[in-house]
Amino acid sequence: MSDAFDNLRVVLVGTRNPLNLGAAARAMNNFGFTRLRVVNPYELAFREARSAVGASEVLASAEEYRSVAEAVADCTLVVGTTAVRHRELQHPVHRLEHGMRLIRKQLASGRVALLFGSEKVGLSNQDLSHCHWLMRIPTCEKHISMNLGQAVAVCLYELVRDAKKVRSPEKLQRATAQEEERLTAVLLDSLRASGYVKPRAAAATEQKLRRLLRRLNLSRPDAEVLLGMLRKIAWKLPQ
Amino acid sequence: MSDAFDNLRVVLVGTRNPLNLGAAARAMNNFGFTRLRVVNPYELAFREARSAVGASEVLASAEEYRSVAEAVADCTLVVGTTAVRHRELQHPVHRLEHGMRLIRKQLASGRVALLFGSEKVGLSNQDLSHCHWLMRIPTCEKHISMNLGQAVAVCLYELVRDAKKVRSPEKLQRATAQEEERLTAVLLDSLRASGYVKPRAAAATEQKLRRLLRRLNLSRPDAEVLLGMLRKIAWKLPQ
Repeated sequence: MSDAFDNLRVVLVGTRNPLNLGAAARAMNNFGFTRLRVVNPYELAFREARSAVGASEVLASAEEYRSVAEAVADCTLVVGTTAVRHRELQHPVHRLEHGMRLIRKQLASGRVALLFGSEKVGLSNQDLSHCHWLMRIPTCEKHISMNLGQAVAVCLYELVRDAKKVRSPEKLQRATAQEEERLTAVLLDSLRASGYVKPRAAAATEQKLRRLLRRLNLSRPDAEVLLGMLRKIAWKLPQ
Repeated sequence: MSDAFDNLRVVLVGTRNPLNLGAAARAMNNFGFTRLRVVNPYELAFREARSAVGASEVLASAEEYRSVAEAVADCTLVVGTTAVRHRELQHPVHRLEHGMRLIRKQLASGRVALLFGSEKVGLSNQDLSHCHWLMRIPTCEKHISMNLGQAVAVCLYELVRDAKKVRSPEKLQRATAQEEERLTAVLLDSLRASGYVKPRAAAATEQKLRRLLRRLNLSRPDAEVLLGMLRKIAWKLPQ
């Protein structure tokens, strides 16, 4: 079971406040998780949090990344957390307890990245496009947005709450985020070459495509086959 | 349902850090609770938290008390939170999800006080003696102690998690903490008068008695009858 939990990567994106970095690490400690990844944290905040009195091993061993894509590359499931309810989301959104059931299942066979956005703006559309689906903490309409450290604590609590229920590994291994991203890149190249991508909507198209591919929940063998196909196609397109 | 939740009193005892007061209030807002009580907070911390930018109505309307007894007087159930596992506890300790089931049931018919101790030392034995039972968040052995704001968030999340399951009121009304405390006082007087209380162990005896009476989970009618009996006895004892 602790082996399965060792597969979780808590990924903090663009965190600004050193206290929040410390609080997230403390919550991880409380519930037995150790693998923290940070994407573009405010440099000063990260240094301050690491050097704070009582800073944990979790912070000391935190891995730093320049992009969400790199931070989730070796994960087979990427889940974003969001407080948003009314914004038009292109992803399936699960309530926390349901989402964590799915995550527990996946943890038995592969790494899972759990993404938390910055204090001010949460996860951007660009960040979200790397996610397979989203998860929402059931906060009330009038006060939706949670403190970062508290959100991490509540999510991890829900994950350990029914720890007995960690499942046996799934039969089929899922594709990693890196494999999916490779697929995205190749397909995007083809779409560009084919004139499908309108220059003014290029960023939006890229995100749409990335989301679409994640929704497929590809197995590793399927992703490989698909990648071979697309590479073949790309090769044949006029440059 | 929101009526039932209006019966919850979050009681912070001896809080020192204004950020923690703010964080606790924010978590209450997130999960739809509004009734905050503070017992002997560090004066400066309380003032600072209240005047902070974005301080919530929860903090503005927080009620201040000089003692735990006063803060829980009108509640029919008093529950303490604790991280402690090995200390010899004189109370039943429930895991969070089980404890919250009991609290949900009680909220349908009466006020429930949920106590959180100070950042450094938690709840004292004196504080705990006012509790009917204790509740423990399932943190891991090596890092038991949670940040105050995060502990409040996790507890309230668990309470709303299965909000559908708020039960219909219980048939019998429970005695309030004030009624139980009256009973404690009268019985203690009698015990003192009878020579049962050894001067050197007076404080310990008082706490033991208070806990014992809480474990009885007295209904209001029973508490009244019992009080009448004990008063009668006390009256007859030599002073």
